[in-house]
Amino acid sequence: MTPLFITFEGPEGAGKSTQLRRLAERLGAEGVRHIVTREPGGTPLGTRVREVLLDPGLTIDPLPEFLLYSASRAQLVREIIRPALERGEVVLCDRYADSSLAYQGAGRGLDTSFLRMLTREVTGGLTPDLTVLLDLDPGVGLTRAANRGQPDRLERADLGFHRRVRQGFLDLAAGEPGRFLVLDASRGVETLAAAIWHAVGERLGAPAP
Amino acid sequence: MTPLFITFEGPEGAGKSTQLRRLAERLGAEGVRHIVTREPGGTPLGTRVREVLLDPGLTIDPLPEFLLYSASRAQLVREIIRPALERGEVVLCDRYADSSLAYQGAGRGLDTSFLRMLTREVTGGLTPDLTVLLDLDPGVGLTRAANRGQPDRLERADLGFHRRVRQGFLDLAAGEPGRFLVLDASRGVETLAAAIWHAVGERLGAPAP
Repeated sequence: MTPLFITFEGPEGAGKSTQLRRLAERLGAEGVRHIVTREPGGTPLGTRVREVLLDPGLTIDPLPEFLLYSASRAQLVREIIRPALERGEVVLCDRYADSSLAYQGAGRGLDTSFLRMLTREVTGGLTPDLTVLLDLDPGVGLTRAANRGQPDRLERADLGFHRRVRQGFLDLAAGEPGRFLVLDASRGVETLAAAIWHAVGERLGAPAP
Repeated sequence: MTPLFITFEGPEGAGKSTQLRRLAERLGAEGVRHIVTREPGGTPLGTRVREVLLDPGLTIDPLPEFLLYSASRAQLVREIIRPALERGEVVLCDRYADSSLAYQGAGRGLDTSFLRMLTREVTGGLTPDLTVLLDLDPGVGLTRAANRGQPDRLERADLGFHRRVRQGFLDLAAGEPGRFLVLDASRGVETLAAAIWHAVGERLGAPAP
């Protein structure tokens, strides 16, 4: 078994959940042991923190917002992700530290060197082996999210914010091309799933059909 | 008006709340504008974070615990404490950053230089003008707290932990004797209230009776 830590990043509405589920199904069909988790959340603590973060009635400044994500992340790494990797499993995580750099860093303007320093402390330096970035024009993504129902606190932020977040993700990907797989999220579900499976198969050492 | 930031520290059951209320009443009687707040809590976000931290059903590792306290603190400083000090008011706060150093540092063993670094970032370097440390033997404090009802998650930790916390507080006080007023919490309520008012009166520049 090859432990592999795979994260999915990108804006709301880009299809992260769909592609993550597709990949999990494929791994299952291939007999690859894996777990699926997400941020914020993934643990009882993280689930409570998620409720707080997504509550549209709360005022949360950028720094406390980052600290709450970090608290959820710290517990998730310790309780779920590291143990699964140590068992040789594949971990699929819907969002991880890159989201903090893109949303609280590029989006909200917090100092990224501080964010990186704290993230190293919080994760013990655990970095994904593969990060799938589903890139999408912010206008399109917000429309998709809005069609699913009431927008939450994150989704109601302004378009300029979402444009900065998108650029933040693209800059992260440009800085680590070996880790990131950047895909145009406007392409079809099957096309995206095939591209993702190809990249995962390479890293698993399995033949990618 | 002299802005003054006063914090109350010490274990559960030492009488912090009683003394804080007494001081608030005295300030009111003297016509000194002041606010009363607490950690974790003090803001809508902090109140939600407090519920999470004090939930005995949740597993929270020391680092995420510290990050949750820091998130509450960051919001409290920005939303409540700094604005009140800028209005020239006296701020009374039930627990603040010293609690993190004592509980998560001395008590749970997190690296205190990391805690101090993050706390500087979170508070923008805002340090109390006066910290009242109500020192009490851990055995006595826990008995008092237990007599008030069901112990919460913090109160159920073991006695060795509480002894380390007590020593942590005493070490902090020894390092900053000008900021700390260390009082034996087993003394009577009136005696303690008089000692605290004396120290506050000095700092307000008012005659301390």
